[in-house]
Amino acid sequence: MSTKFSSALVERLSPYVPGEQRDGDNIVKLNTNENPYPPSPQVLRAIATVDGHALRRYPDPESLTLRKSLAEYHQLEVDEVFVGNGSDEILALAFMAFFTRKPSGAAALQFPELSYSFYPVYCDLLNIKSQMLPLNSDFSINMNAFDNNGGGIVFPNPNAPTSLAESAESIEALLKRVPDTLVLIDEAYVDFGAQSMVGFINQYPNLVVTQTFSKSRSLAGMRLGVAYANSSLIEAFSKVKNSFNSYPVDALAQQAGIASIQDQDYYLQTMEKIIATRNKTTDELKLRGFRVLDSAANFLFASPTKHNAAALFNYLNENNVLVRYWQSDLLKHWLRISIGTEEDMQLMLALIDEADEAAFV
Amino acid sequence: MSTKFSSALVERLSPYVPGEQRDGDNIVKLNTNENPYPPSPQVLRAIATVDGHALRRYPDPESLTLRKSLAEYHQLEVDEVFVGNGSDEILALAFMAFFTRKPSGAAALQFPELSYSFYPVYCDLLNIKSQMLPLNSDFSINMNAFDNNGGGIVFPNPNAPTSLAESAESIEALLKRVPDTLVLIDEAYVDFGAQSMVGFINQYPNLVVTQTFSKSRSLAGMRLGVAYANSSLIEAFSKVKNSFNSYPVDALAQQAGIASIQDQDYYLQTMEKIIATRNKTTDELKLRGFRVLDSAANFLFASPTKHNAAALFNYLNENNVLVRYWQSDLLKHWLRISIGTEEDMQLMLALIDEADEAAFV
Repeated sequence: MSTKFSSALVERLSPYVPGEQRDGDNIVKLNTNENPYPPSPQVLRAIATVDGHALRRYPDPESLTLRKSLAEYHQLEVDEVFVGNGSDEILALAFMAFFTRKPSGAAALQFPELSYSFYPVYCDLLNIKSQMLPLNSDFSINMNAFDNNGGGIVFPNPNAPTSLAESAESIEALLKRVPDTLVLIDEAYVDFGAQSMVGFINQYPNLVVTQTFSKSRSLAGMRLGVAYANSSLIEAFSKVKNSFNSYPVDALAQQAGIASIQDQDYYLQTMEKIIATRNKTTDELKLRGFRVLDSAANFLFASPTKHNAAALFNYLNENNVLVRYWQSDLLKHWLRISIGTEEDMQLMLALIDEADEAAFV
Repeated sequence: MSTKFSSALVERLSPYVPGEQRDGDNIVKLNTNENPYPPSPQVLRAIATVDGHALRRYPDPESLTLRKSLAEYHQLEVDEVFVGNGSDEILALAFMAFFTRKPSGAAALQFPELSYSFYPVYCDLLNIKSQMLPLNSDFSINMNAFDNNGGGIVFPNPNAPTSLAESAESIEALLKRVPDTLVLIDEAYVDFGAQSMVGFINQYPNLVVTQTFSKSRSLAGMRLGVAYANSSLIEAFSKVKNSFNSYPVDALAQQAGIASIQDQDYYLQTMEKIIATRNKTTDELKLRGFRVLDSAANFLFASPTKHNAAALFNYLNENNVLVRYWQSDLLKHWLRISIGTEEDMQLMLALIDEADEAAFV
C-alpha cells in the first residue's frame, strides 16, 4: 500500500497497534490499562465551565500554569517540567531530542526485550539503532546488562507488560554506573506502587522521567503527558517541540491537568481502590491456578495453567471481557489484564470459573 | 544551551516562534489570526456535557466519527480524510510521510520564500533539503517557478502572510504540470475567500490538502487539523501517525469538531461577519495611506506609508493592540493584522489616527 509519493521512511515503518477501543454498555474493557474510575469532579467542572474565548484562542504554547502546578506538586522548578500531547508524544520527542543517531559512532539505544512496544516503533521512525536486552528469568529487568555506551537507555518502571517494579536504589545504581548515557525512566504506571525517580533529576544529569495523566489521573481521553529532567534537558525537549508543533497541549487539557493536580484526595482514594482491587484479583487468580507476577501497576501479568492463554483470551473476548494478548514467543502464555472496578473483576473471575467448570476452554 | 546528552538533531534546530499569547481584558489580539468570535454554542454544549467515562478512556485512535462527518461534509470517503492535533501536527506528519529525503537523489522540497515560516523549521527537523522560490513582484506566488523535481511542493492558499489567493485553475494547471511531484496545499485560511482544492483529490493523485479548525471554526484552543487526499496517501499519513502517537486527537477535540461541522449556519454567519470587517478595514487602511493587498484570508498584509512599520508595530503594541511584524528584508515594511471584531478594528484605526495627528510615530 505504497505510492510513488510516500517517503522511504513510510516504507520502513511498522506502526504500533493499540488495544481495541470497542465500546458498548456490556463491554468490560481490561485491555488498555485505563482507569476504571472517572477523573475528579473538579476536572469535569473545569471542562464544563470553559468559555468560548478560551477555545477560539491558541492555548498557551508553554503550558506555563500547568507546568507551575506540576513543579509545585513535585517541589521542582518550572523549567524542570515539560508537557505534551500524551506520554506517547513525550516519548517521541524524547527519542528525537536524545536518541537520534549522532553523525559518527552510532551507539545503540538499549531497552528490555519486553517493555513498551512503542520503543522499537520510534526507533524505526527516527532511524535509531537499538538493542533489546533479555530479561532475567523471573521477568525482572536485568539492570546489569545496560551498558554505558552513550546511546541511551529506556525502560518503563513498573515495566509493561510484566507489571514488575525496580527499586529506586537499583535505578540509582544504574544512573551512577552509566554517567555518559541518558536514562529515560518511563513512569506511566508509577503511581500504582513503584518509587518515582522525579525527585532525583537534579542529582543525576543523565536522568529523564516521563509520566502521564492517562492512568492514575483517569485522563486518557485528554492526552496529557509530562517529562521531568534538569533544565538543560528540558530545553532540548522544548526545542524539538517548537520545531514540531507550537501548541501540542490544548486549552482544555491544560485546565483538566491543573484541576486534577489540585484534587489530591480524589487521586489518593482512586489509587487506594485500584490497588485493593489489584491485590484481591491477584489472590483470586492465584486460587484459580494462574501464575501472577507481583504487580506494582494497574494491570496484572498473568499466565493461566488450566487454560491455553490464547484460547482464554478469545473466550473472554467473545464474552465481552477484553484483555490483552500477544502471540510472540515470550508472551504467548500470558495475558495482560487491566484492573477495572471490583465488579469488572468479579465478572471476569466468574467467566473463568465457568470455563473451569465446563472445561471448555 | 546544549548538553552532552542532546542529539545532533537538537543542535541544528531553529524552532518556530509563534505570536505572543499576551492575555488580559484590555488586549486587542490581532497577532495570531485567531477568530474573534467564539465557536458555535453547539460546540460548547458538546464539551460541557461530556461525561467522565469519555475522559478516562482513550479516545478513538482513528477518530472515525469525526472523519465520517468531515467526509460527508465534503462528499468524500472516510479513508480520504485524516485528522491530527492541529494543522501543525498534520503538516509535520505530511513532511515525514512525503518529503523526507529518499536514500538516493535528494530532490528539494519547494516553497515560496514568503509563506508559513514553519516549513523551513520542519525541513531542519527532518533533514529535508529545501528550495525557497521568490514571489512575483506583486507578492503573488510564482507558480511557473515550481519544478516537477519529485521533491515536493508546499504553499498556503491563501498564502501567509501575503493574504493572496491562487485560483483553482492556476493550481490545477500546476498539478497537471508536475505529475511526479507531490503538491501540498495548506488551506488554513481557505474558508475566508479562496477556492478549496478538496474536491480535486481524486482527480490528481499528487494532491494533498490540509485544513484547520483553528481559524474559520474558532477552535485554535482545541487543536484540530485535517488532511484530505486519495486513500493511499492518507494511508501514508496513518502509518506515520501510528508510529508517533496512537491517539493525537483527544476525546473532546473529536466531539468539538463534530459539533462544529453540524452547525453550518453559525459558521456561515461568522465567515460573513469577518469578511465584511476585513473588507471595511482594508478600505479604512487605504484611506489612511496604507498599501493593503487583496486579502482572501482573515488577516491583512498592510504597509504603512506615513509611518515606519516597526515603529507603528511598537506603538500599537504599547497601546495593547498586538499585530505581527517581522524584521526580515522582505517583510520589514509590512504588518500582518488579524481581523478582529468591528470594535477591535475601530480601536486600532483610532490609534492610527492619533498617531497620524500627532505625527509621533
